[in-house]
Amino acid sequence: MPKMTANDLLEFLRGLFPGSLPDRYSFETVEDGRIVFRFRTTENDLRPGGTVSGAVIMAVADVGMYFAVLSAIGPVALAVTTNLNINFLRKPGPGDLVVDTRLLKLGQKLAVGEVYVRTGDGPDLVAHATVTYSIPPER
Amino acid sequence: MPKMTANDLLEFLRGLFPGSLPDRYSFETVEDGRIVFRFRTTENDLRPGGTVSGAVIMAVADVGMYFAVLSAIGPVALAVTTNLNINFLRKPGPGDLVVDTRLLKLGQKLAVGEVYVRTGDGPDLVAHATVTYSIPPER
Amino acid sequence: MPKMTANDLLEFLRGLFPGSLPDRYSFETVEDGRIVFRFRTTENDLRPGGTVSGAVIMAVADVGMYFAVLSAIGPVALAVTTNLNINFLRKPGPGDLVVDTRLLKLGQKLAVGEVYVRTGDGPDLVAHATVTYSIPPER
Amino acid sequence: MPKMTANDLLEFLRGLFPGSLPDRYSFETVEDGRIVFRFRTTENDLRPGGTVSGAVIMAVADVGMYFAVLSAIGPVALAVTTNLNINFLRKPGPGDLVVDTRLLKLGQKLAVGEVYVRTGDGPDLVAHATVTYSIPPER
Repeated sequence: MPKMTANDLLEFLRGLFPGSLPDRYSFETVEDGRIVFRFRTTENDLRPGGTVSGAVIMAVADVGMYFAVLSAIGPVALAVTTNLNINFLRKPGPGDLVVDTRLLKLGQKLAVGEVYVRTGDGPDLVAHATVTYSIPPER
Repeated sequence: MPKMTANDLLEFLRGLFPGSLPDRYSFETVEDGRIVFRFRTTENDLRPGGTVSGAVIMAVADVGMYFAVLSAIGPVALAVTTNLNINFLRKPGPGDLVVDTRLLKLGQKLAVGEVYVRTGDGPDLVAHATVTYSIPPER
Repeated sequence: MPKMTANDLLEFLRGLFPGSLPDRYSFETVEDGRIVFRFRTTENDLRPGGTVSGAVIMAVADVGMYFAVLSAIGPVALAVTTNLNINFLRKPGPGDLVVDTRLLKLGQKLAVGEVYVRTGDGPDLVAHATVTYSIPPER
Repeated sequence: MPKMTANDLLEFLRGLFPGSLPDRYSFETVEDGRIVFRFRTTENDLRPGGTVSGAVIMAVADVGMYFAVLSAIGPVALAVTTNLNINFLRKPGPGDLVVDTRLLKLGQKLAVGEVYVRTGDGPDLVAHATVTYSIPPER
């Protein structure tokens, strides 16, 4: 059982970011240690040439890992990224991104996970990331 | 001698991003394979708690490497990031970021560099990244 | 269909390393872009405390990716590692390692894959790596 | 002032590895958080083609970070690598490797450093690595 449901995650996100950002996320899978969400990109997310910018792809990979950590340990705002490694595999055109994250390890101090970023309309990998979060001990 | 001056880089950036983004960059060092710039953060760049978000730090690290590649090979829009690895070292409060990038290798197919991100008012490291770009052969 | 069978890979390995190294590998899966092999560790592979050394784990992750590249492009000795990122998840005691590698991308210039390293007697992850190889164009 | 001298580090290494391995290290710089050592490669360290194998380069980068951590916190055997990211830049021929490591951060739980690996006879970079160690809290 995940410690937070899709609704919990959206509420949590709305508390952190009162703007319209949470409207851009929709959760497809919320399990203990596994999160799949769809992210709606906008014009502002495109770089010249019409592909989604690498900055956006890195940001959603980091957010994916944050959600996966939350699903496993509950709403702990203090988890912070310590390392992110990303390989960019294909340039995505405009449209949704689907971000699929799984925890590989949930330790006392560190959580490690991997993130597959795909386009919204097919199985093609856009990027693969591994991310480490430092998690507070007193949870 | 760098292939592009600070003015060239700003012109190039304005061509790619017609909005106000280029106003947020000021170059402190432009050498062949080494770029230092200052980036002005705004309210929008902060995450809850008042620190600059990791997404912004990753984005400026990637941009730093892009500029370092441009300084070495000239205005080649087609260079693309293939790998970025970043370690987050300290949370930066509001204010400028200083982004210091050096090429470690400029090969036929790949350029590899490292990026130190510091706060605008001291030597403290905020993050360290290594970045690989794929560069077109026909330059 | 993989470009090389398990026997091809062992022959190739014996050609490169005439010593006893090839005897330490046994292939469990050989597909196009996916390789699973078992690696027999010896006393020399242990570090103080009796766990397999990180150096050995990194080496087998790199070899796993090499085999996965060979399975997809055939016996090309000139493929070389350009980047390896590894997260160590659990310390493995003495015994076999099982190394499971899948290509994420096979491009013109670069191949990117990920490697799961497990202990020989269970599903526990010892390490996870992503590896990039530069591959020659004229294959 | 480093917590361990070059002699301390060699003693420590001899305690961990009673064989001839310690004879292959000679320290050039030992400061608090910075270590430079020279590593003598042997025939066994070469791969076909006569270049030092990537496995050896990864191993010395990891050892470099271990020494840098020891120089800063003293002889704590329990420090373990959690992440290593390496970019291979040039293939080194036979001969010594010079391994230059600096800590970027020494935190409560994690130490992060970077490692430059050069050939023994010139400034050319062979590889660049960033390494994270988990360090025990009770030091």
